[in-house]
Amino acid sequence: MANFCLIIQYDGSRYNGWQRQGNTPDTIQGRLEAILEQLYGEPVDLNGSGRTDAGVHALHQYANFRVPRLLSRYSCREIRDYFNDSLPKDIRVLSVDKADDRFHARLSAVSKLYEYRIDCGEISNIFDRRYLLRVTEPLDIPRMQEAASFLIGTHDFRSFCANRHMKKSAVRTIYDITFTVENGILYIRYLGNGFLYNMVRILTGTLLEVGLGDLPPSQIPAILDGLDRSLAGPTVPPNALFLVDVFYS
Amino acid sequence: MANFCLIIQYDGSRYNGWQRQGNTPDTIQGRLEAILEQLYGEPVDLNGSGRTDAGVHALHQYANFRVPRLLSRYSCREIRDYFNDSLPKDIRVLSVDKADDRFHARLSAVSKLYEYRIDCGEISNIFDRRYLLRVTEPLDIPRMQEAASFLIGTHDFRSFCANRHMKKSAVRTIYDITFTVENGILYIRYLGNGFLYNMVRILTGTLLEVGLGDLPPSQIPAILDGLDRSLAGPTVPPNALFLVDVFYS
Repeated sequence: MANFCLIIQYDGSRYNGWQRQGNTPDTIQGRLEAILEQLYGEPVDLNGSGRTDAGVHALHQYANFRVPRLLSRYSCREIRDYFNDSLPKDIRVLSVDKADDRFHARLSAVSKLYEYRIDCGEISNIFDRRYLLRVTEPLDIPRMQEAASFLIGTHDFRSFCANRHMKKSAVRTIYDITFTVENGILYIRYLGNGFLYNMVRILTGTLLEVGLGDLPPSQIPAILDGLDRSLAGPTVPPNALFLVDVFYS
Repeated sequence: MANFCLIIQYDGSRYNGWQRQGNTPDTIQGRLEAILEQLYGEPVDLNGSGRTDAGVHALHQYANFRVPRLLSRYSCREIRDYFNDSLPKDIRVLSVDKADDRFHARLSAVSKLYEYRIDCGEISNIFDRRYLLRVTEPLDIPRMQEAASFLIGTHDFRSFCANRHMKKSAVRTIYDITFTVENGILYIRYLGNGFLYNMVRILTGTLLEVGLGDLPPSQIPAILDGLDRSLAGPTVPPNALFLVDVFYS
């Protein structure tokens, strides 16, 4: 089998997330697989590095697919161009490369970087407004950093997961959470080995409650220990969340 | 009278341009004047530095208004905040300042800087796509610069004006046209003492014809001399045009 690795960028605004769901709802994976089927004349599975929620964007989402060497008559460049000629303007395939036989976009992933963008400037941003959460009250970023320090490490993140019937392990490792302010925009970046359903959005909602003074940073360990979604902050909207990158060893 | 100078930013996508047109079509000036009338309890005229076409954006549009000192009971900060609390998210007042009595946003303007944004990257841009013109064929930028050199200076720009019944002078001075490529985006910037109706968009359409090899740069003087709109290139779409700044002495 020939194995191909794709880097994909998308504006998730009008999609029901990454993951294919039957034939009806419009998803990124569904769009890409439909084009692969056109190209190869038979269904081809595309493995993403992981799901992104409805409305969430990706700067660099990774995926791979395998086709029998007999069918593999297109160059990487031809596959990329075929995708981009067929895709709507809010999805682009940035690159297609031949991958090692054992490469699997989800199973081989070592860590992922997500970014949440908060507009806390004095005057709200106009041209990027679709990709920002506007917060008008002042945010105490040192307090948010203090709260974030309790989240870094290996924990059971069940309190930060929207899936109430989660049977699998909710243990994940967050390697780092950073805060950067540039032109009135606060970027919160999360580097971790994996994230649960809605986890980055609930983490951000909780950190924002801390920043607004509604929750003391010292409360974070108790929220983690409680293993109860209702203890954490709200799920912030998806439109300001970006999957920035996925890292492989 | 108290005289106030405003700096305004807007995404022109859903407006019929800057200039008020009766009560019906939605314009930037119309929106701002309606708020001034609410604030002062009587109609107030707002003078913009100039019109922008329907769909064109502004990073820094200037305007001024005068109110009798008796009515002038609000601070600059209060006026700015009242605007921003009342305006839709695609229009912001960046600043309000007291201006010299003689200041008039249009009559005092010395020059204006416009920018047209062309996406000529290998992969089309996703997140700024609403504000870009996508050109997939290669552009010969040195040829475009050569053509631009014939446009710089004082000329009758009637060939680059969409208003066929223009009775006033069409003589304008272009001080500079610059080309910058950054991350696959070509920015063409026009600095001039004033621009006719659709002029920047027709200049850009003509320069693009040169860049695509459909028009020799040496043809520009004949287009200027012909004083005939049909000689110049097409009017490119408004969504990629920005009024960047207005300069006063």
